Amino acid sequence: MNVEFINPFLTSLVNVLSMMAQTQLTAEKPRIKKDETALGDVSGLIGMVGPQTKGSLSITFEEGLALDIMEKMLGERPEGINEEVTDMVGEITNMVTGGAKNMLGEKGYEFDMATPIVVSGQGHTINHKGDGPKVIIPFNSDSGKAHIEVCFDK
Amino acid sequence: MNVEFINPFLTSLVNVLSMMAQTQLTAEKPRIKKDETALGDVSGLIGMVGPQTKGSLSITFEEGLALDIMEKMLGERPEGINEEVTDMVGEITNMVTGGAKNMLGEKGYEFDMATPIVVSGQGHTINHKGDGPKVIIPFNSDSGKAHIEVCFDK
Repeated sequence: MNVEFINPFLTSLVNVLSMMAQTQLTAEKPRIKKDETALGDVSGLIGMVGPQTKGSLSITFEEGLALDIMEKMLGERPEGINEEVTDMVGEITNMVTGGAKNMLGEKGYEFDMATPIVVSGQGHTINHKGDGPKVIIPFNSDSGKAHIEVCFDK
Repeated sequence: MNVEFINPFLTSLVNVLSMMAQTQLTAEKPRIKKDETALGDVSGLIGMVGPQTKGSLSITFEEGLALDIMEKMLGERPEGINEEVTDMVGEITNMVTGGAKNMLGEKGYEFDMATPIVVSGQGHTINHKGDGPKVIIPFNSDSGKAHIEVCFDK
């Protein structure tokens, strides 16, 4: 695993949520995903295509954390995961990937982003099917967990 | 909606399942997704990036259909959606998108594919967040339903 490639995604999520929603996430150490299954309630997914590599990213939120972010951003807490919440998760996915893209571009790794997809459904699991290792970064917060998964083809 | 852009995905899924798993799908007419929510049990998702456009595709299967495809391909029916099933759904997603990419390339529409992601979880929903219309193509079969959703930014 190339840490240089993974840390920009970690930094970018922490920055985006801190700026947009005054929500502090604490990241655990990124690790290679093996048998681990991370369950989530709402996930943003995006594809990445570059000249050197291609891959996929997901950001999964527990429902409580997603609703908390909405409340902090809009002043009102939705009752559950509705279209406004999935729009926000899609937007966060775009911003986090865009932030990481900028940081990686400065290091000479270029890629273009596809458009995001948001999955909702209690306790779903995400399986990245690229050829490279699947890296998982768990995040903790007062209102629940999130995690990023990234997989690039070698 | 540009039918020329959507039909290759429809044709490609029907071809792939007929060839790989002797499974006949009947497609309904593609339509713009509005309030419609299509629930599924296992979905393959992939991002697409091209010089003219970018977008995302999903193929969602009901569990019974996914298990039936596995049984027809491998001679053995898994008890539920396991890693072998998600691998197969990822592979089908790649093949369908690759088939459509070839057909569209002949018409001058070029794009590159990211790597697939497979989501599992009973009754999840998929929300494409690109700017363009979301097109949904429902498919019926003897063992259950599938549907493709495609969204391209204009």
